Amino acid sequence: MPHVLDNLRVVLVATRNPLNLGAAARAMSNFGFAHLRVVNPYALAFREARSAVGASAVLANAEEYTSVADAVADCALVVGTTAVRHRELQHPVRQLSTGARLIRKQLASGRVAILFGSEKVGLSNQDLSHCHWLMRIPTCERNISMNLGQAVAVCLYELVRAADKAVKAERVARAKAGELERITALLLDALQLSGYVNPIATAPTEEKVRRMVRRLNLQPADAEVLLGMLRQIVWKLRVDDAGE
Amino acid sequence: MPHVLDNLRVVLVATRNPLNLGAAARAMSNFGFAHLRVVNPYALAFREARSAVGASAVLANAEEYTSVADAVADCALVVGTTAVRHRELQHPVRQLSTGARLIRKQLASGRVAILFGSEKVGLSNQDLSHCHWLMRIPTCERNISMNLGQAVAVCLYELVRAADKAVKAERVARAKAGELERITALLLDALQLSGYVNPIATAPTEEKVRRMVRRLNLQPADAEVLLGMLRQIVWKLRVDDAGE
Repeated sequence: MPHVLDNLRVVLVATRNPLNLGAAARAMSNFGFAHLRVVNPYALAFREARSAVGASAVLANAEEYTSVADAVADCALVVGTTAVRHRELQHPVRQLSTGARLIRKQLASGRVAILFGSEKVGLSNQDLSHCHWLMRIPTCERNISMNLGQAVAVCLYELVRAADKAVKAERVARAKAGELERITALLLDALQLSGYVNPIATAPTEEKVRRMVRRLNLQPADAEVLLGMLRQIVWKLRVDDAGE
Repeated sequence: MPHVLDNLRVVLVATRNPLNLGAAARAMSNFGFAHLRVVNPYALAFREARSAVGASAVLANAEEYTSVADAVADCALVVGTTAVRHRELQHPVRQLSTGARLIRKQLASGRVAILFGSEKVGLSNQDLSHCHWLMRIPTCERNISMNLGQAVAVCLYELVRAADKAVKAERVARAKAGELERITALLLDALQLSGYVNPIATAPTEEKVRRMVRRLNLQPADAEVLLGMLRQIVWKLRVDDAGE
């Protein structure tokens, strides 16, 4: 859904650390988002991040704003991110998984901004007042505050996560029963030749070995390799026996 | 599900950047995971990360290992993470959402390790050979490679994401990695003694055998039986050789 992702604006407000600007931009290009907006970043941080070795196209094309209002002016939905549970929030707060679903719907028809606050204090009440609702990543009570770059990565991952459902269930081919039976027979040979199995008490062992071989869930290629190995081992045990 | 999360081991292999060690540890405590293991980190990076201001309890309690085998020995399921699509991967590769579901199931009954490779090259083939299967985050074709700390955050988020849904885990007990490694070693012995493996060309075979043994999805009881069988076969091959 490339054109849909193209409708997202990641908005970093008052970011202080150039590494976090770089990390956010990197996560964006990892997950296919191109449009970064920064609001009043620490000037030095922004310059440093932009000039860093390997700075991405996302960062190079970042748009700079002096107010949240301007940065989200063209967006139909504005969502704030927060780690806080008990701050006096006048907004609905949604779990990331629920929020991302709503955002995806909206992206189909218009621009959406996701806001991330500064490392120290997050989004201010003033910033939050521009948001339709808030979204939180389900972190632990004891350590709720995420690193900014990691928070951006997790949010964007959740946004593309469901877009990806098209992935076909991987097919796991299985070895045919005839091959499993040949493996069983050879393994039994090896066990007899090595003295693991008493020839007289073979029957119960045979069943056990057969069941075990089936439990291995062998793929065709592995079954073939295993057959080759067992053939060689049995051959060697036979040769040795004959030589005695 | 606190006790369930307690069964996860996050394993960072050959990490170079102290900031990434810190970021991984931070994401772990954000999402409620406590057990970090590091395999051959750059010594300086590890020291720096540990002594950084605000270094977390997770980092302080990180366990250091010198091999992947040791770091995962007590885990029943070992999952590698990869960004790569087209490398010649002999493992099943699952999307993160699918993989996380399987991991959660396994966490209900035993320990699971998730491996993250170094920033430059990811996990080596040698590292991958210890994995039952691989997991990838659905990043863009054009920019698939994620920052390490962000990748850890996204994977852990996906693990806790559906935890609310109270996944009823059907228990699938699995053999521990230490036992699988013993099986691997014995099978290699048998292959060498029987002449299947040219001793000079052992290394690639070793990786192949290790991967194959992981794909067998052995249950603990079967692993024990298989160990007994291989011990007997190897013993017999040795005796025969000595008698010649």
